[in-house]
Amino acid sequence: MSPSVTNTEVNPAFVLHSIKNVSIENREIPKLRNEHDVRVHIEQTGICGSDVHYWQRGRIGDFILTSPIVLGHESSGTVVEIGKAVKNLKVGDRVAIEPGVPCRYCNFCREGAYNLCADTIFAATPPWDGTLQKYYTVASDYCYPIPAHMSAEDGAMVEPTAVAVQICKVADLRANQTVIVFGCGPIGVLCQAMAKAYGAKKVIGVDISKARTEFAKKYAADEVFVPGRAPAGVDPVDASRAIGEKIIAEFGLGEGADVILECTGAEPCIQAGVFAAKKGGTYVQAGMGKENVVFPITTACIRALNIKGSIRYTAGCYETAVDMVASGKIDVKALITHRFKFEDAEQAFELVKKGQEDVLKVVIEGVL
Amino acid sequence: MSPSVTNTEVNPAFVLHSIKNVSIENREIPKLRNEHDVRVHIEQTGICGSDVHYWQRGRIGDFILTSPIVLGHESSGTVVEIGKAVKNLKVGDRVAIEPGVPCRYCNFCREGAYNLCADTIFAATPPWDGTLQKYYTVASDYCYPIPAHMSAEDGAMVEPTAVAVQICKVADLRANQTVIVFGCGPIGVLCQAMAKAYGAKKVIGVDISKARTEFAKKYAADEVFVPGRAPAGVDPVDASRAIGEKIIAEFGLGEGADVILECTGAEPCIQAGVFAAKKGGTYVQAGMGKENVVFPITTACIRALNIKGSIRYTAGCYETAVDMVASGKIDVKALITHRFKFEDAEQAFELVKKGQEDVLKVVIEGVL
Amino acid sequence: MSPSVTNTEVNPAFVLHSIKNVSIENREIPKLRNEHDVRVHIEQTGICGSDVHYWQRGRIGDFILTSPIVLGHESSGTVVEIGKAVKNLKVGDRVAIEPGVPCRYCNFCREGAYNLCADTIFAATPPWDGTLQKYYTVASDYCYPIPAHMSAEDGAMVEPTAVAVQICKVADLRANQTVIVFGCGPIGVLCQAMAKAYGAKKVIGVDISKARTEFAKKYAADEVFVPGRAPAGVDPVDASRAIGEKIIAEFGLGEGADVILECTGAEPCIQAGVFAAKKGGTYVQAGMGKENVVFPITTACIRALNIKGSIRYTAGCYETAVDMVASGKIDVKALITHRFKFEDAEQAFELVKKGQEDVLKVVIEGVL
Amino acid sequence: MSPSVTNTEVNPAFVLHSIKNVSIENREIPKLRNEHDVRVHIEQTGICGSDVHYWQRGRIGDFILTSPIVLGHESSGTVVEIGKAVKNLKVGDRVAIEPGVPCRYCNFCREGAYNLCADTIFAATPPWDGTLQKYYTVASDYCYPIPAHMSAEDGAMVEPTAVAVQICKVADLRANQTVIVFGCGPIGVLCQAMAKAYGAKKVIGVDISKARTEFAKKYAADEVFVPGRAPAGVDPVDASRAIGEKIIAEFGLGEGADVILECTGAEPCIQAGVFAAKKGGTYVQAGMGKENVVFPITTACIRALNIKGSIRYTAGCYETAVDMVASGKIDVKALITHRFKFEDAEQAFELVKKGQEDVLKVVIEGVL
Repeated sequence: MSPSVTNTEVNPAFVLHSIKNVSIENREIPKLRNEHDVRVHIEQTGICGSDVHYWQRGRIGDFILTSPIVLGHESSGTVVEIGKAVKNLKVGDRVAIEPGVPCRYCNFCREGAYNLCADTIFAATPPWDGTLQKYYTVASDYCYPIPAHMSAEDGAMVEPTAVAVQICKVADLRANQTVIVFGCGPIGVLCQAMAKAYGAKKVIGVDISKARTEFAKKYAADEVFVPGRAPAGVDPVDASRAIGEKIIAEFGLGEGADVILECTGAEPCIQAGVFAAKKGGTYVQAGMGKENVVFPITTACIRALNIKGSIRYTAGCYETAVDMVASGKIDVKALITHRFKFEDAEQAFELVKKGQEDVLKVVIEGVL
Repeated sequence: MSPSVTNTEVNPAFVLHSIKNVSIENREIPKLRNEHDVRVHIEQTGICGSDVHYWQRGRIGDFILTSPIVLGHESSGTVVEIGKAVKNLKVGDRVAIEPGVPCRYCNFCREGAYNLCADTIFAATPPWDGTLQKYYTVASDYCYPIPAHMSAEDGAMVEPTAVAVQICKVADLRANQTVIVFGCGPIGVLCQAMAKAYGAKKVIGVDISKARTEFAKKYAADEVFVPGRAPAGVDPVDASRAIGEKIIAEFGLGEGADVILECTGAEPCIQAGVFAAKKGGTYVQAGMGKENVVFPITTACIRALNIKGSIRYTAGCYETAVDMVASGKIDVKALITHRFKFEDAEQAFELVKKGQEDVLKVVIEGVL
Repeated sequence: MSPSVTNTEVNPAFVLHSIKNVSIENREIPKLRNEHDVRVHIEQTGICGSDVHYWQRGRIGDFILTSPIVLGHESSGTVVEIGKAVKNLKVGDRVAIEPGVPCRYCNFCREGAYNLCADTIFAATPPWDGTLQKYYTVASDYCYPIPAHMSAEDGAMVEPTAVAVQICKVADLRANQTVIVFGCGPIGVLCQAMAKAYGAKKVIGVDISKARTEFAKKYAADEVFVPGRAPAGVDPVDASRAIGEKIIAEFGLGEGADVILECTGAEPCIQAGVFAAKKGGTYVQAGMGKENVVFPITTACIRALNIKGSIRYTAGCYETAVDMVASGKIDVKALITHRFKFEDAEQAFELVKKGQEDVLKVVIEGVL
Repeated sequence: MSPSVTNTEVNPAFVLHSIKNVSIENREIPKLRNEHDVRVHIEQTGICGSDVHYWQRGRIGDFILTSPIVLGHESSGTVVEIGKAVKNLKVGDRVAIEPGVPCRYCNFCREGAYNLCADTIFAATPPWDGTLQKYYTVASDYCYPIPAHMSAEDGAMVEPTAVAVQICKVADLRANQTVIVFGCGPIGVLCQAMAKAYGAKKVIGVDISKARTEFAKKYAADEVFVPGRAPAGVDPVDASRAIGEKIIAEFGLGEGADVILECTGAEPCIQAGVFAAKKGGTYVQAGMGKENVVFPITTACIRALNIKGSIRYTAGCYETAVDMVASGKIDVKALITHRFKFEDAEQAFELVKKGQEDVLKVVIEGVL
């Protein structure tokens, strides 16, 4: 796809009006809000679980849909207009777009933890519009140039790749560590590939879907594991402990894995992850499911674990993600299983909603 | 107390024979096991919850009483014999004794995480004898000289002080941070005092016992808080969240405390601690209660918390604890509420077992 | 001093026209540049060595005076006008002003290292005007409210205090460490006081001026040391090594100090600092003198030292500095030895230029 | 080579009697000193610059040859005898030997910085014998099993590999960083290969020998650089600065490299390294040359560099080095340019002494 950027005044957008109610409508072309902004002609957009969640439920946590928003936040495109102060980009640059632009003025922003900024403008998070429109305006420093050999699809895939970079950064992942990744969906397998690219000694992917683990094994993981259902009558935490211990034993992890990356949010995975971590090891919570889970806190204490939450991205994640894709260390193309035209966006969302094993990443082409 | 060290061959010891069955009996004087060992004439010993736990239940986790052991592990004394290779001590030195001596050969020991060594010889942890006897032999580098102006009681109190040092070390506590400490028992108030000595901006002690919080306020805490019972019909986690939020609001903690030190192991405190932590903050689990608790994992994830377990002590904790007591920055005398003679050791244990609000630290004098 | 803020259109400013050529002239009142700016009526300003340096030499490193600038960058004042987006301040607030406002868009800013931003607008650094004028406009988030009990002088002294906070932050200073501070000028003694407030075990101040060390001893240092001149014919590095070793021996530092804070930039101090550091210890270079010095690199290597440069301030330094002054942990009043009226600003500069032992901090009152 | 271990009582050793005076003589077979020791039949030994240094000069720093010692410390072999307490090894195991065994009792050892232990028994460092003998006894936990597919030569090469691991550990090297390595000798190119294995974005090798950089380019470096001689009349530091800036410009490093690994100890390299580092970057001093050098301390300060010394190895380095070689991520065979029989050991030393460009690593076969 090579969009011909025109001056036409139309800006088709995929709008979520209310719960389960979406349509394409023509919107005003978004204007630069200040001299650091740029306008991007969107070329490809991946669909994320959170997009579907807003569509189906109208809220995630405290973010509640109260007026229509444009969906989509995993996008790449071409810069078509730049503000006067923009130095890092020029018209015609092809970019990956980081979807959250923080306030720059709060203490979190100033200390480099901008992922924690409460005033972030995050694409497709109420009340902010997302990127599933022809044009999107965004701060220039949240656009990252991609080299010519990276496709627009690759560019859209920088977003989930950057999520994996942040997870590995939070984990302080180092070469020659053993890593268990719970979850073999897009974020999970990207974490597995990232861990390998970072020099991990052994990476084990875990998922209840055999098909997904088979993909993970082909994609990057050294080993994969499919936990069975807990036997009836067994205490659920004991069952999770057994899974953790089985993973340790089966893959020769000695006293446990150095690093656990939990990308499912599923209660049994969270528990098994704690039990699979070695003393002094690191456990990162990246997946989100139930608000509260039964948690083996005494084990976490006695093992002196480092348990950390990972959320969004911080400085450097996007650059690293672009580098990883551009250098071929991370193959994002292999994750795209389905492609849709912009006018078929709702079908794309329907497909993701079903959650089939054979659907990894679905992308939607931008408006030419 | 200034014991006259004699050559007599008796070694009275307070022995746990089986659950709830203790008595004083004469034991063989323990011999130096190698040229790095020293023999210490024990002068004062504090009683710890774990001593009482073994007495009443016969086990803690995987440590199970299968043969009689001597109880006690918070002790000070005077060196009466030294091995040939001992360089840091001489006969007559007054010392605080670190009760766990690791193997020195495993990876944990070699990398400086000796608190995680599985082969540690830990006093009064089955099958290892403790310090409630006239003489105790221990590796010389786990004995720390105390200055003349520190009493033997002060020396015994170095143990819980070192526990607090380790908790603050795990928390990476820095000056001008806000700190909430759950628990106003001995470890809790020592953590509060340590945080103040480390330059904390504001330290808040939390306990369900009003009497204990009153002591904490006098002792070191800037502020204290007594959470009430959760109203009937309220979801327990919601009630804990309300407690966390109330502490934040009442003491002007803005977005939450920088550091949470959880020294109770109580489920509502664990939950309230997570909700009281600021984004990017640190939460240390030091207390141990139920194996598993309902835990607000999504909040931990979204807030990008650092949750860490603290267990025992690591290199430097004892030296720091001695320095803190010796310099007067930590007043350990104020924590000792009851004193017993060696022959009344069982009464001391009975007192601690009752868990009265007015009982903080109970110490037992050594055998002259 | 309680300035009555008026609407008068005059804005007297202390202007450096060219090298050694200063005068007070009336300047246009600076306007808010954007909706995040505030205008502050300056009340007190401390003089810093760099102000004098620009006055006498016209340059520091790559910053060269090419057109007139207003001098001064250590100021406090009262907010008299706020931009529309300002949330953290209101008119009438009394504030300490952080003199460098970074670009917010570069990678350094975004990752929390805004002290390294090359596009920082730094007061009294060519081509940027400083604060020695009646009014100064600055970004609201670089103004820090001070409580009512802090004087305007205290507020001006927050700047050097924040420098000391950053130095201690770079040093990762922890409680119970031993610290040697080279230099007993304002920054040196503030570092000494800060180290004590952070729970340092022992702080040793070093200066070639006996009078300054005497002040340091009274002010905060546990011990002080006056190195003598190196004997004739001795290799300078050997002489520095001897000084380092003498400090270790004289103050019982065992294998060396845990932390060295070098606040002089003097070659012999830099060398002595390396030799006085313990293996694995931390050395912070904060003082600036000669561009290049003879440096004991092999000792630094063998001892596995951590040598770090400290420059300006980072997020949190000003808040901590205000807290330290407000709580009384740091007594900044004791450092102010001379006070001048605004119209006598040049005399104040003349006094600082002389570098007398009895001149610590000189402050200039603002225009009423 | 597959040595047949026999019970014969001979133990030929390559002994340094006094400066420049070596010979092979039969020594008593070394006995286990305690129950944790093992005896290893040495199979391959690499020669290191320090071995040659003792041979030619009789001292390095404070380590002075006062009585004959056996040379050699980069060895692999087969375990032929084990102490009673040995759990990690059995007779017949093939191992790489870490040459320094620390005291285990000092604070450095206990806190995991055993590379700083002053009482380390280090092979071929006066007064301790080295490994160039048929048998060598050493603590079992300082022997690391190597898999069957690793040759004895590979095992000997674990030592310099572990040096590179420690350098990268000190540098806290992370994926996607840019790295400049000064020096393309064995340690330099191993650091380059290690950096690549750790996911570095770009690794640049620097050496004054064109031949060595050519090898480095083939071996692992992405780019190499041969600095020319400084033009006559140019200030040496200015010349070094020019080199640093040229490297930055030539390889598109933007504001400088993230990480500098200095493996030469040469003054111009040290200086150029500082100038080639980005603000906030990390510089590791691993090479040792002149005791003192002219050092751009103001640049180090203004750029807020982290300058760290790397010495020997710490816990985990040997395991990682074995893993890196065993997995094929590091190809150590390519570094071995010359092989000698044990009886020709002196010729091997002569060859290394010459320092020819085409000599990288020289190994000496053990006594069958």
